[in-house]
Amino acid sequence: MLNRVRSAVAHLVSSGGAPPPRPKSPDLPNAPSAQTAAPPEAPRSPPARAGSSAPAKTVEARASFSRPTFLQLSPGGLRRADDHAGRAVQSPPDTGRRLPWSTGYAEVINAGKSRHNEDQACCEVVYVEGRKSVSGVPREPSQGQKEVTHESLVVGAIENAFQFMDEQMARERRGHQVEGGCCALVVVYLLGKVYVANAGDSRAIIVRNGEIIPMSREFTPETERQRLQLLGFLKPELLGGEFTHLEFPRRIQPKELGQRMLYRDQNMTGWAYKKIELEDLRFPLVCGEGKKARVMATIGVTRGLGDHNLKVCSSTLPIKPFLSCFPEVRVYDLTQYEHCPDDVLVLGTDGLWDVTSDCEVAATVDRVLSAYEPNDASRYTALAQALVLGARGIPRDRGWRLPNNKLGSGDDISVFVIPLGGPGSYS
Amino acid sequence: MLNRVRSAVAHLVSSGGAPPPRPKSPDLPNAPSAQTAAPPEAPRSPPARAGSSAPAKTVEARASFSRPTFLQLSPGGLRRADDHAGRAVQSPPDTGRRLPWSTGYAEVINAGKSRHNEDQACCEVVYVEGRKSVSGVPREPSQGQKEVTHESLVVGAIENAFQFMDEQMARERRGHQVEGGCCALVVVYLLGKVYVANAGDSRAIIVRNGEIIPMSREFTPETERQRLQLLGFLKPELLGGEFTHLEFPRRIQPKELGQRMLYRDQNMTGWAYKKIELEDLRFPLVCGEGKKARVMATIGVTRGLGDHNLKVCSSTLPIKPFLSCFPEVRVYDLTQYEHCPDDVLVLGTDGLWDVTSDCEVAATVDRVLSAYEPNDASRYTALAQALVLGARGIPRDRGWRLPNNKLGSGDDISVFVIPLGGPGSYS
Repeated sequence: MLNRVRSAVAHLVSSGGAPPPRPKSPDLPNAPSAQTAAPPEAPRSPPARAGSSAPAKTVEARASFSRPTFLQLSPGGLRRADDHAGRAVQSPPDTGRRLPWSTGYAEVINAGKSRHNEDQACCEVVYVEGRKSVSGVPREPSQGQKEVTHESLVVGAIENAFQFMDEQMARERRGHQVEGGCCALVVVYLLGKVYVANAGDSRAIIVRNGEIIPMSREFTPETERQRLQLLGFLKPELLGGEFTHLEFPRRIQPKELGQRMLYRDQNMTGWAYKKIELEDLRFPLVCGEGKKARVMATIGVTRGLGDHNLKVCSSTLPIKPFLSCFPEVRVYDLTQYEHCPDDVLVLGTDGLWDVTSDCEVAATVDRVLSAYEPNDASRYTALAQALVLGARGIPRDRGWRLPNNKLGSGDDISVFVIPLGGPGSYS
Repeated sequence: MLNRVRSAVAHLVSSGGAPPPRPKSPDLPNAPSAQTAAPPEAPRSPPARAGSSAPAKTVEARASFSRPTFLQLSPGGLRRADDHAGRAVQSPPDTGRRLPWSTGYAEVINAGKSRHNEDQACCEVVYVEGRKSVSGVPREPSQGQKEVTHESLVVGAIENAFQFMDEQMARERRGHQVEGGCCALVVVYLLGKVYVANAGDSRAIIVRNGEIIPMSREFTPETERQRLQLLGFLKPELLGGEFTHLEFPRRIQPKELGQRMLYRDQNMTGWAYKKIELEDLRFPLVCGEGKKARVMATIGVTRGLGDHNLKVCSSTLPIKPFLSCFPEVRVYDLTQYEHCPDDVLVLGTDGLWDVTSDCEVAATVDRVLSAYEPNDASRYTALAQALVLGARGIPRDRGWRLPNNKLGSGDDISVFVIPLGGPGSYS
């Protein structure tokens, strides 16, 4: 995934081929293609989560699970990281090279729900060189041409990277019988702005001076109900006569035919009444609540990569048309605020968020960072570890339990903590 | 339209027929159907705007244009209100009965772009009686049933009212050759909450202690690009081989075939590059910017009622599939804030907003209301008049001009000012 994003951004800033329409935005003095002598950009691209569906059958090394190279795990370390009973929290070694910006990272394997840790993470600084030839000089008049900002080009490059990645997985499935799919959460830093792209149920938040700024939203059958219903309404063949695109507050029984029932369709956010007809007795496209919400009684996440071959349970209906590979991209302008060393961007997979609220994360940020000197570069790793430990809990009473005795997460958990005003440099 | 909304809300609170699923929300003690002795509810429903398309051919009195009855216009007054040269601002007379809550209202006819003032407004208190029989006693267990709040039932009733109104206009068109369509902005007050439903290019804002709270958003080819593109993508027959669902920053010339060009599709918020293919030379489904943005080179507003027969310019392609009749409904809970007499909800048709920003409206609210005693019920009418006058301007240099010498609005202009903490009572 990182390769795709890197390639898309590199392609963007060094774009060759026919001259693109020249952006006419006045706020483009920093467009990289106009700055061959500019400091190198640093897209950084943390984690992708795998595991929304069945574990992949790996027929090629590239499709196999592995721990991030920056963990520098020895064979013995790898075995400990894979131990579902011990669930040791893993972080990059203190002695090695730090991640860019002194970014903190920690992860832990699941409690046994799957053999491998299906969370995958990476973090890199990449250099791309701008080419003057493309848009250094205007080639054509900008009249009658829509404004295209530099920011919207980066967003488009990231969106396309997700799409190309999805198509690549479709090709690899056909060629090598690789199955499965994953969610993805990607952060790119470029020219003063942080781009957070999310497709799935991972989450990113900024904690700034104690305030929580959501940088992503989850894509679930509930949050995406109207998109899914619209698709089912416009393409009823995707429902195969087995499902109805309407939502009802509960399953309708055949004896209720002709009676009135509350419903919502693709256009509605509220509920209204309708008379129950025969096709309302079909199973609803979207049903269930919270963690139990499902599309076609099968999947609980509505965006992600892969899963091209996934079928509705006990049916031949394909799920993929309802699964979108497109991320929502949110942009955060680092230059609009004077950040302090305690301001961080926290990325976590669903293992973290299943048992931890945004507020609890913010409280942990405050508690852990205040225990370290502001210039101690190890504080962000300590914070990532604290977040993972807080979500995993400790083994007690035949389970992993939190201090309040509730169950901790039995899922894989991965956390990045990126300092926004820390000891690192952004350029 | 008001009749439809009133009927939908009345239907909701006095709902007969089969027992609906009982909402299990704990915050429903005020559900009106459970309170036959409750004070009467007061849905109030200000204005609907007409005129996004050609003037209606009126073959029935019900489809003709008329000024609001609360203006109490004499035949002479009606002639003055219709005078495109004088453009006298109209308000309810000081001597008559005030609108509910001492709501202020003012309107002015256009500068000659159409014969009639096509803005239509009404404002009413209606009483609906709850029936104990429906949901006073739970009829079935609430297990496995989705939570349905009272608020979501009101929202659904309003959404359905818009849909039913649109269907009614389709029937009247067939029966009586009535053509045309309109945007609609509706406000309903019920049980402590204000519901603002908008389909089109009118706008509602709350000005509270000087702060601006948007209560609607405009629906234009630009704000609805992705919805329109998705429909064109999933139903290409609606584009008739004449349009492409892709957006480009400018028109592509045939000689550019095979070159690279920026584009956006229904999934993208950013721009990316593609190689120009033959079908990219078609006219874009969405094109133009700002007030000049159009769907299929024809309409500039993407939500509204009616227009069932509207065709693409110089074509037989229907526009209606892209025009949605569904409003966005925003809810404002009046009980969550202690409102003062200077806090108001301002509703305006596009004639106001074309030349007036939210901030300018907020400044006028402050300026006018501070010149009146807080308990002077005429202050809200004075404010509505000031807003209409400020958007109309005065005749000078062969046009209607604002103090800064820019052109005022030549459109019909209608404004409601609803006090949120004024001398009226909400119950």
